[in-house]
Amino acid sequence: MTYCLSLHCSEGLVFLSDSRTTAGIDNVTLHPKMRIYEREGDRVLCILSSGNLSITQSVSAFIDRDMERAVGEAGGCCLMNQHNLYETARYVGERIREVRHLDADALRQGGLDFNINLIVGGQIGSQPPEIYQVYAEGNAIHASRESPFLQIGELKYGKPILDRGFTYDTPLHEAVKFGLLSLDSTAKSNLSVGTPFELFCYRAGDLRVSHRMVFPEDHPYLKDLRDRWQNGLIQLVHEIPPLDCLLR
Amino acid sequence: MTYCLSLHCSEGLVFLSDSRTTAGIDNVTLHPKMRIYEREGDRVLCILSSGNLSITQSVSAFIDRDMERAVGEAGGCCLMNQHNLYETARYVGERIREVRHLDADALRQGGLDFNINLIVGGQIGSQPPEIYQVYAEGNAIHASRESPFLQIGELKYGKPILDRGFTYDTPLHEAVKFGLLSLDSTAKSNLSVGTPFELFCYRAGDLRVSHRMVFPEDHPYLKDLRDRWQNGLIQLVHEIPPLDCLLR
Repeated sequence: MTYCLSLHCSEGLVFLSDSRTTAGIDNVTLHPKMRIYEREGDRVLCILSSGNLSITQSVSAFIDRDMERAVGEAGGCCLMNQHNLYETARYVGERIREVRHLDADALRQGGLDFNINLIVGGQIGSQPPEIYQVYAEGNAIHASRESPFLQIGELKYGKPILDRGFTYDTPLHEAVKFGLLSLDSTAKSNLSVGTPFELFCYRAGDLRVSHRMVFPEDHPYLKDLRDRWQNGLIQLVHEIPPLDCLLR
Repeated sequence: MTYCLSLHCSEGLVFLSDSRTTAGIDNVTLHPKMRIYEREGDRVLCILSSGNLSITQSVSAFIDRDMERAVGEAGGCCLMNQHNLYETARYVGERIREVRHLDADALRQGGLDFNINLIVGGQIGSQPPEIYQVYAEGNAIHASRESPFLQIGELKYGKPILDRGFTYDTPLHEAVKFGLLSLDSTAKSNLSVGTPFELFCYRAGDLRVSHRMVFPEDHPYLKDLRDRWQNGLIQLVHEIPPLDCLLR
């Protein structure tokens, strides 16, 4: 499995992903699930992926193919020349449909669903930053001030922490902590999600990739965050008064 | 959906369940998912149920039928006359198989799985308290010192809090708080799980039902627990140092 999430707050965007891919318990490998595309001063885009690895890799290959064509004489439509983020998300959705056309029938014959979910986000020029979830059917939804985060993959374990604490008004450096805790909690409760974690923290208006990090299992910041969270959480429960009737 | 859980600690057992049952979003009703059977001084048993409501109600009906027979002249095997908790769990598993024999084919023809999961726990005489999960196939597993809790239904949202903080050595009144937080977090993140919550807290050796409570949505203790948790959690995240690079 996979767990990827993206948080949208007033100061910018946070993208996080784990790196574990499984095809049965004997075949656990690491694959990046975060791809960043940058043209400094013009646009920064980030794509997070979950689902069937061959489908997500095919989508990436088609995105790369179109970008190579677009810089050549033929020109044409590609990920990095869309007018806005909605059209960028729809462009990615079209690439999913292209892979579906190619592979869905054969996968179904093998008993496999056409399973892919993507998060596409970033900023283009002076437009506001946005994040979109693109479904296996190629359609898309965006996050909003009221629903300021998107999750794909193994999303349930890490949702309560976001539901309790993260809002659009959370500062960017706090949002990173909420995201890392959501990801680390998922990894602790589900063996199929694991380190290294990839982080891309984008500050609105930057139009370049400034804060990108990889956290291996023994990263000092991750270990400190995890310890403080675990101890703090137990202390917090301890400070809640018990039910009276249990003390009698 | 449903979420039920049971925690096993050195001082006793905690059983918790929500009360929401759904058959599509237009048909949301309340049904108890916790049944307690008591013969004071001899044994106390608690059964939590998730899955298809007609299956869980049929299992209960068969349990009641056997108990009525057992007190009559015919006698016979019933929930309340098993030698130990393992045999009690297996007895309940046999009742699931009885319902399967009756209904599984017809359900399958209607496109429905034979979906039921039960938690069966309690204490018999001087034997140690135990909790078992009984599957749709009628087989069972028990919790242990190393894996001291069982969950059925919509279990992912409420697992991280238990994984982080609850152990076999957690005091009973603390275990109740962990259980309520796990249940309330699930209700907050998933609309299909909701109040009223039912709690049965059993202290080892009691052999009677002393602490049983129902928490409606506006129960003062539940509201206080929820507020303290939400505020404390945000404060806890706030106290974790941010990544250095984000402050530059």
